[in-house]
Amino acid sequence: MSLKVLNHKVKTAVIGATGFTGEKLVEILLKHPGVDLTYLASRTPKPVAYSKFFGRFRKKTNLFCEPLDIKKAAKKSEFLFVSLPHTASMEYIPYLIMQGKKVVDLSADYRIKKASNYKKYYHKAHKDKVNLKKAVYGLSEIFKDKIKKAKLIANPGCYPTSVILGLYPFLKDGLIKGEVIVDSKSSITGAGRKAVIEYHYSNIANNFWAYKPFVHQHVPEIEAILKEACGHAFGLLFSPHVAGIEAGIYSTIYVPLKKKISRETVKKIYDSYYRDCPFVRVSQDLPKLKEVIGTNFCDIGFAISPDSRYCMVVSCIDNLIKGAAGSAVQNMNIMQGWPETLGLL
Amino acid sequence: MSLKVLNHKVKTAVIGATGFTGEKLVEILLKHPGVDLTYLASRTPKPVAYSKFFGRFRKKTNLFCEPLDIKKAAKKSEFLFVSLPHTASMEYIPYLIMQGKKVVDLSADYRIKKASNYKKYYHKAHKDKVNLKKAVYGLSEIFKDKIKKAKLIANPGCYPTSVILGLYPFLKDGLIKGEVIVDSKSSITGAGRKAVIEYHYSNIANNFWAYKPFVHQHVPEIEAILKEACGHAFGLLFSPHVAGIEAGIYSTIYVPLKKKISRETVKKIYDSYYRDCPFVRVSQDLPKLKEVIGTNFCDIGFAISPDSRYCMVVSCIDNLIKGAAGSAVQNMNIMQGWPETLGLL
Amino acid sequence: MSLKVLNHKVKTAVIGATGFTGEKLVEILLKHPGVDLTYLASRTPKPVAYSKFFGRFRKKTNLFCEPLDIKKAAKKSEFLFVSLPHTASMEYIPYLIMQGKKVVDLSADYRIKKASNYKKYYHKAHKDKVNLKKAVYGLSEIFKDKIKKAKLIANPGCYPTSVILGLYPFLKDGLIKGEVIVDSKSSITGAGRKAVIEYHYSNIANNFWAYKPFVHQHVPEIEAILKEACGHAFGLLFSPHVAGIEAGIYSTIYVPLKKKISRETVKKIYDSYYRDCPFVRVSQDLPKLKEVIGTNFCDIGFAISPDSRYCMVVSCIDNLIKGAAGSAVQNMNIMQGWPETLGLL
Amino acid sequence: MSLKVLNHKVKTAVIGATGFTGEKLVEILLKHPGVDLTYLASRTPKPVAYSKFFGRFRKKTNLFCEPLDIKKAAKKSEFLFVSLPHTASMEYIPYLIMQGKKVVDLSADYRIKKASNYKKYYHKAHKDKVNLKKAVYGLSEIFKDKIKKAKLIANPGCYPTSVILGLYPFLKDGLIKGEVIVDSKSSITGAGRKAVIEYHYSNIANNFWAYKPFVHQHVPEIEAILKEACGHAFGLLFSPHVAGIEAGIYSTIYVPLKKKISRETVKKIYDSYYRDCPFVRVSQDLPKLKEVIGTNFCDIGFAISPDSRYCMVVSCIDNLIKGAAGSAVQNMNIMQGWPETLGLL
Repeated sequence: MSLKVLNHKVKTAVIGATGFTGEKLVEILLKHPGVDLTYLASRTPKPVAYSKFFGRFRKKTNLFCEPLDIKKAAKKSEFLFVSLPHTASMEYIPYLIMQGKKVVDLSADYRIKKASNYKKYYHKAHKDKVNLKKAVYGLSEIFKDKIKKAKLIANPGCYPTSVILGLYPFLKDGLIKGEVIVDSKSSITGAGRKAVIEYHYSNIANNFWAYKPFVHQHVPEIEAILKEACGHAFGLLFSPHVAGIEAGIYSTIYVPLKKKISRETVKKIYDSYYRDCPFVRVSQDLPKLKEVIGTNFCDIGFAISPDSRYCMVVSCIDNLIKGAAGSAVQNMNIMQGWPETLGLL
Repeated sequence: MSLKVLNHKVKTAVIGATGFTGEKLVEILLKHPGVDLTYLASRTPKPVAYSKFFGRFRKKTNLFCEPLDIKKAAKKSEFLFVSLPHTASMEYIPYLIMQGKKVVDLSADYRIKKASNYKKYYHKAHKDKVNLKKAVYGLSEIFKDKIKKAKLIANPGCYPTSVILGLYPFLKDGLIKGEVIVDSKSSITGAGRKAVIEYHYSNIANNFWAYKPFVHQHVPEIEAILKEACGHAFGLLFSPHVAGIEAGIYSTIYVPLKKKISRETVKKIYDSYYRDCPFVRVSQDLPKLKEVIGTNFCDIGFAISPDSRYCMVVSCIDNLIKGAAGSAVQNMNIMQGWPETLGLL
Repeated sequence: MSLKVLNHKVKTAVIGATGFTGEKLVEILLKHPGVDLTYLASRTPKPVAYSKFFGRFRKKTNLFCEPLDIKKAAKKSEFLFVSLPHTASMEYIPYLIMQGKKVVDLSADYRIKKASNYKKYYHKAHKDKVNLKKAVYGLSEIFKDKIKKAKLIANPGCYPTSVILGLYPFLKDGLIKGEVIVDSKSSITGAGRKAVIEYHYSNIANNFWAYKPFVHQHVPEIEAILKEACGHAFGLLFSPHVAGIEAGIYSTIYVPLKKKISRETVKKIYDSYYRDCPFVRVSQDLPKLKEVIGTNFCDIGFAISPDSRYCMVVSCIDNLIKGAAGSAVQNMNIMQGWPETLGLL
Repeated sequence: MSLKVLNHKVKTAVIGATGFTGEKLVEILLKHPGVDLTYLASRTPKPVAYSKFFGRFRKKTNLFCEPLDIKKAAKKSEFLFVSLPHTASMEYIPYLIMQGKKVVDLSADYRIKKASNYKKYYHKAHKDKVNLKKAVYGLSEIFKDKIKKAKLIANPGCYPTSVILGLYPFLKDGLIKGEVIVDSKSSITGAGRKAVIEYHYSNIANNFWAYKPFVHQHVPEIEAILKEACGHAFGLLFSPHVAGIEAGIYSTIYVPLKKKISRETVKKIYDSYYRDCPFVRVSQDLPKLKEVIGTNFCDIGFAISPDSRYCMVVSCIDNLIKGAAGSAVQNMNIMQGWPETLGLL
């Protein structure tokens, strides 16, 4: 990294700093050489030392986490990560955009362009259609050019990140014929930090189950983004699972092929699409989840069925990093003109 | 249970008593009211108290585990569970059958009728074609009538148990059109008790990965048995995964449907097939793996895709119980004319 | 087991059937050959199939769990396990005793004879001093004779079970000089089934911490019972820890010795005290926690310090079985004159 | 950090790069702004891309790991981390020192000054008494001044790091009277990456056990270093345990007090000793292990017994970071005159 990058540190805020994603954002941003973390907010009723919430931040930061004051947030920062629950983000973001701030929103509020779909899956009418139209979907590997110029980024959902990166080259090249089946497995942290009995240690450890098959709220996101990126629709059957693991998403994607194709050719296609993507690792072998945990990488591998009619694509990420906080910072790097990997390797 | 059942306890042996499956067999058989455990053998060079191998058996049994002496085994028992590695079982079983013993073999040696398939997947020519022909595939829910009269049971593999039980009613009723995709997740115990670095705690905990896609040795077993049971072949794409969990198999099965069908109808079909099966629990909800761990149950649930073209069937078991030792004892119960659940609930 | 035992099955209730302990009780009692489970109650607002609470009980029981009606409970059962929160038990137990029922109470309400200690640690004055006086502390290994004749059992706490069994022979023989330090590690299930963020999977998995050192509510229980059993007080420093494990308590006990003693002698002393105790396994080796998980055993082992001034005693149990539901059933067996191990091996 | 620090990157080698510690060293050093990693060696028979050993290093480094050639190692680097098994280090280090290199040795070979103790615990006579004498024990918090000038660092053992940091201020101030009992719990990674059945996932997950009580090889290290640092000996009873957790050491230390002392005073004493130590976090609360995992921190907390005769000190670390690789890099930072936290926060 060159020194010039660091000349001016960008004053940065995290709104929603005590969720799993917010916590991971703070962790990454504290080490980021281009960032000066200036404001943290959450639902706390009064300002509390951030290290009181999470003891692991002692001797790493003296920042306080404050009750959200959006004007103060705007005043104290140039760049804001908004990590609020779905439907809450759109209450605050119009103000920030109006103040000329750059914003990465980690909720689903600006991901789905079609308002009826938003309402169907998030049970509330969208309130900020102006910015919804302008928001750029922050999947760096596909929309980098738009991200460079964006003021507002809709940071991708965790499942969509793994699924879209796994499918994009195939779909873009028109090699798919028929319905794609996606069997995804995720850590429970994807569901947020909630005090419910279902997430009690004894209910998650060594457990495994499917939920919301075919109707998960990430389905319209995956479908719309891939259609936007590739120019045509496709059939998707998405089936998420909760796995008793601490972190990660592992998506096994079954792609029906239009024509015979070898594993080597598939790899070449993916390599060409992701050649300039520092955080995608394409391999002929099948990835192991643990190799991406704690990193911003998305690992992708393949297998071809004996009758050559199907390709199995495996795509895995750390759900809180490449699936949330890491890709958000990757977007910041691109928006700021910094090296894409700054603070992320 | 009636007392008469217990009038005569059956002298029983476990050959291969120190593997994961053998250990689980001993645990179940020690509590079984119809069984007198008389002989345990393994690769130990000299007789050792079984509780020296596994401290958890102290004050539960004084049995020794001996170097395998097949004549002694036959002399000391009427009923034998053979839990040796694949290709080793067929060395000993001919002798036991010749001696008029009843045998449940837990290896793959008598599961695959087609010798060429056996050789392809287990890398050795079959040596005992006479008994191979007579052996009955011990999936109690489908082959109970044959099991009742059998002398030699080929106990099903763990993946096949979950997959066949999940698919059988659908296939039997001819409701499937096109290729079935099976995404299975298993505990590493399915791979046996081996001292390899890949199974080190740090490599398995919180890890997850796909392996042997489409070419796992259980593919021909699943295909052949379902063809035998249902009378027609079908397309299968089987993709196993290792999950960082202590026990269990969770199979998510994507079934392309010949015609529209409701979840209620699917449930009725499964209910009718499994009405008399005490260890299959059919539900409209999706099962959670932990509910079958430590039990001999197979839990099955469903979801229908919004376009009604696919049914997702979920089928899960404890891989060492319903997937091995438990179903072996279930077979014994049927062979002995005992209640099917004896010693298993 | 002889048939006579089973001639009359005892109608049995579980009050508080949806906590961790209640659930384990139901699991054990459903398999118990002397028990007819007739009534389950919890805080549920209306009767619900027990298998709706816990799917793992499907096809194992058709019982419903009802809102607690203490009169109905008394009418429908001869023997009652009361597994209510501390301070709630004493509201209901007087009525049950008055009705001539036999009761095992799994709360702390009848464990501590000294009312001031009860108030200090459970923050409420005791309401039922009559029965408090008559209640027998249900540690079968020490108080079997009293348990045989008891109507009301105060079932021991989980930590006290492991600590008292580990210390009793030493203390009884007067071999201790100075303060005993007990470092105990427990699964979080010991804290009950609560929807709090602290018990979220992500906070427990791979975590470990000390809590309530020296002042845990089990301290007065351990001290009073050992004083009662051995006739003299002793100094105790008790330090509990939460370990990120699914089940179990592992207590490492540091005993300052009055005089030199060999490991062999220690083992002999323990062997003689626990000779007739089917659920205590004494060993010269140090026990591993997993060997007692899922069982009613307490495993005990030793080491002597090089200067022979200290003996380290290790004592471990499954906290929900020998530490709660299992020992409760062991007490029932003794109260009923059944074999102590009935339904527990 | 100032730019001048980075002017010259130090050519650095890791000898023994495929063990748990070596892998962690590579991970840290790849991100370290002062380091140019130039040479990796292990027991591999031929050079292999390091990312072939550990897929998680793909796109992070193109380095190869080579069969150890000590001359090449010396030629290619100025600073070497030697992470070989005990008794192997002393074969190579004399040459490196002779060549004027700076070395941090992560084995036990240079930690124990008394050769007879070395032989007793590591079963081999010491071969390099010259350098043994010169080597500095690399516990930065206590020996920083010596470390600054050292050429050869004996990096502390994992248990000793947690225990010595937990005891040092107390012992230094002469507040201890009688024997200190240390009950430590460690992840199995501390035992190295070995393909043995004891470390199989199924033997470690959810397990817990004590081992080598009082006679662990780290006892003489703890005793000698504390004596050197504090000027007087003390009685130590050290009892290590294996915990079924992925990472970390949690030491609970029972200190008999010479006189009454409050928790506040204890905290003040520790604060004063560790005021300038960026990686020690002293707290009145008891630390949770997970707060140090993935970091180079040592968290310390306290409790005083009700009779004020004992203080319980808790000290926890990530065993592979502050207990090995992290502290090794901390030592490098000090030896190079860099900020102590460089590359470690």
